[in-house]
Amino acid sequence: MTELDPADQQLARDLDRAHVFHSWSAQGALNPLVFAGGEGARLWDFEGTQYLDMSSQLVNVNIGYQHPKVVAAIKAQADVLTTIDPKHANLARGRAAQLIVEKANLTGAEFEKVFFTNGGADANENAIRLARLYTGRDTVLSTYRSYHGNTGAAIVATGDWRRMPNQYARGHVHFFGPYLYRSEFWAETEEQESERALHHLERVIQAEGPDTIAALLIETVPGTAGILVPPPGYLEGVRELATRYGIVLIADEVMAGFGRTGEWFAHQGFGVTPDLITFAKGVNSGYVPMGGVIIPPAIAHAFDERVFPGGLTYSGHPLAAASVVATIEAMTDEGIVENAKRIGDVAIGPALDALKAKHPELIGEVRGLGCFWAMELVADAASRAPLPDAVMAGIRSALVGRGVLPFVQNNRIHVVPPLVVTEGEISEAFGHYDAVLSEIRLS
Amino acid sequence: MTELDPADQQLARDLDRAHVFHSWSAQGALNPLVFAGGEGARLWDFEGTQYLDMSSQLVNVNIGYQHPKVVAAIKAQADVLTTIDPKHANLARGRAAQLIVEKANLTGAEFEKVFFTNGGADANENAIRLARLYTGRDTVLSTYRSYHGNTGAAIVATGDWRRMPNQYARGHVHFFGPYLYRSEFWAETEEQESERALHHLERVIQAEGPDTIAALLIETVPGTAGILVPPPGYLEGVRELATRYGIVLIADEVMAGFGRTGEWFAHQGFGVTPDLITFAKGVNSGYVPMGGVIIPPAIAHAFDERVFPGGLTYSGHPLAAASVVATIEAMTDEGIVENAKRIGDVAIGPALDALKAKHPELIGEVRGLGCFWAMELVADAASRAPLPDAVMAGIRSALVGRGVLPFVQNNRIHVVPPLVVTEGEISEAFGHYDAVLSEIRLS
Ligand SMILES: Cc1ncc(COP(=O)(O)O)c(C=O)c1O
Ligand SMILES: Cc1ncc(COP(=O)(O)O)c(C=O)c1O
Repeated sequence: MTELDPADQQLARDLDRAHVFHSWSAQGALNPLVFAGGEGARLWDFEGTQYLDMSSQLVNVNIGYQHPKVVAAIKAQADVLTTIDPKHANLARGRAAQLIVEKANLTGAEFEKVFFTNGGADANENAIRLARLYTGRDTVLSTYRSYHGNTGAAIVATGDWRRMPNQYARGHVHFFGPYLYRSEFWAETEEQESERALHHLERVIQAEGPDTIAALLIETVPGTAGILVPPPGYLEGVRELATRYGIVLIADEVMAGFGRTGEWFAHQGFGVTPDLITFAKGVNSGYVPMGGVIIPPAIAHAFDERVFPGGLTYSGHPLAAASVVATIEAMTDEGIVENAKRIGDVAIGPALDALKAKHPELIGEVRGLGCFWAMELVADAASRAPLPDAVMAGIRSALVGRGVLPFVQNNRIHVVPPLVVTEGEISEAFGHYDAVLSEIRLS
Repeated sequence: MTELDPADQQLARDLDRAHVFHSWSAQGALNPLVFAGGEGARLWDFEGTQYLDMSSQLVNVNIGYQHPKVVAAIKAQADVLTTIDPKHANLARGRAAQLIVEKANLTGAEFEKVFFTNGGADANENAIRLARLYTGRDTVLSTYRSYHGNTGAAIVATGDWRRMPNQYARGHVHFFGPYLYRSEFWAETEEQESERALHHLERVIQAEGPDTIAALLIETVPGTAGILVPPPGYLEGVRELATRYGIVLIADEVMAGFGRTGEWFAHQGFGVTPDLITFAKGVNSGYVPMGGVIIPPAIAHAFDERVFPGGLTYSGHPLAAASVVATIEAMTDEGIVENAKRIGDVAIGPALDALKAKHPELIGEVRGLGCFWAMELVADAASRAPLPDAVMAGIRSALVGRGVLPFVQNNRIHVVPPLVVTEGEISEAFGHYDAVLSEIRLS
């Protein structure tokens, strides 16, 4: 550990304000926090102020901060070879692919190969490309309540041959997924919501024309949209529709995968096997940028003779791959996925229920599993009107002021700590949630 | 340095063939090379076979393999903090942005901020997005002979609000750039080629309607397309057209930037300042995935009040940022950009001229600057018909067999070594190019 220099606090902020252009924001009024280091579920700044992290940053730090085995693996690989053209073979990359496939396979035969990317967006790009080429169809179905990444133009701007097989400047259709608390289907029970959502999806497939649909791309548990745990039967139904209509089912497990739900992959907890899996974030907790697509034999071998027209400079980056190997090994050895499940069952779930019971007029619904939960804050419990943005911003500031780093999204607080979080840390965090919500009630 | 285990050679290859899905290839007949480590411009495999690298992998390892200062910086940052949400400030990221802006500024005021991405494709994505929002126009002009990255669908698949401002599933128009050796304009001199290419571009702008064009996206020196050094006057003319028609000029410096041409940015050598610069590769030689957009004050501050609708989980990744800081410092301290220029002038340029003089029927043209050169191999010098792919594959194998790692693209050999290459290494490589081309003549 390096010594902390309090002067770096201001320096980091000044350099940021002067020279860093930020994602998804107006740049004028930004007031970023500064972090100097971390360990487990805790972070600190250069002045030594500690924060308990209930965000996992962008829900990616599944293994917690600065896991010593992962840090050691990055340093060891840095000493050996930091970069190599994807076309050459690399040992760390091969090992990472092998481990990822192993975790994806429940029977040992569903999945065979991995195509590596830098993150989640390009994982979905390449899964869509695989599905379109494999089926010879164009349309991609996905839900309105989804986030799949932020790329959409570079290959179309490209002039050379690589543009042609990828120029699908059309063919995205959106549908509604299940979300009982704000049902699009006038449903009153989970069973109704599941059935009606499946009926709606099938009607969209039929109306678009099944023969035009390459892929059905869904977040197994939609994350940014509100941790919308699918009701019983829904994912099985989606799988059945995809199979019936010859559509490639892509599970976007970028946020839900690698232990977040208490399973290696979220779909494994629902007894459903997709055709392609996309991942990023938890695969190495973001220690080095990496994502990818897990590919079954049938689709992988469809490209034995035929060129796969997709690629990127850092596909299968050695430093990232080494960190993946260490992450998966450490998560396995230390039972981190099991811990995520346990913490959800014995700590976060019950604590959320208790919090809702105490603040029934403020908390409209709580839902989740593993270390992947949301509470919906409402201005009015009957109409379910969301708590206004300004109040949510106040909640966020109050939590930060108390040393809790929350994940606030629209009118929701997502409770998404690193999977190594302890019961003690969860009860500490919930003490602060309670205190802050209590203050809101009084004002 | 770790000890090399020869058994790892086969293991790396086996794991690769079993589980790694490769970019831009049919997967069946792949026979990848394996590399265990490297230093400077040399790589070796697990059996100790050495290779002299004339490819820089995907033209990204500008600083050479395993530069000790960059490796040390990665390890030091790994010990401190490997990952952080882009919305928080990070010291390594701030320092990287400051240094990048410094190198981009010749007068000290042209550029102000950096938006960081994971690589080149998403750098162009976000530059296009900035240009579209800044101008309120849609169309993006780029050349047929170009490569700008491989993303085009994830944001359109996304369902939430982030889709709307990015859903430009149209508006890409391609034009021809200058390339005297295979002129599209019936030109016979560089002056004619430049004038006519500018005339053609202006006619495309007028025919599309200047008010519809957001951006003109060009590789300053088109790389993968053949290292097409623009003729005198062309880039100034492009700059003038962009200014006249209110179009944002984006220089894609992903391959040409960070010393490759013997300047920090290729456009600096042509006396032209673009509106946005995209970069990746050389910024940290790919030691950790990173790219980005360099933004001038006018465009940066247009988003002070207005939300910039773009982002990615690993924007401004701390490990990548630390490697950028060390890379730029080492390149500055060690005069690596100056070396690239010098090697081009005294070694690669003259060696290519001599090689062409010796093989006039095989080498149609040589061109380049810095450590960024191409020789065009032809089956017939008069018609300029490209050497067939099978012969090129034979050349590649023969060079690899002689311990030279070449960059072969279509009918061309690109001579693109790490910028730390020595004159001795260049003459060693050219000995092998000569020997292999001599064998081709005899067969
Ligand atoms: C489900 C899902 N898919 C894809 C992405 C995009 O990942 P990235 O930001 O690495 O491009 C995200 C990011 O939040 C995500 O949550
Ligand atoms: C000029 C140029 N732009 C963009 C890219 C795409 O970069 P990446 O592969 O990191 O997405 C490349 C890659 O070769 C390139 O050469």
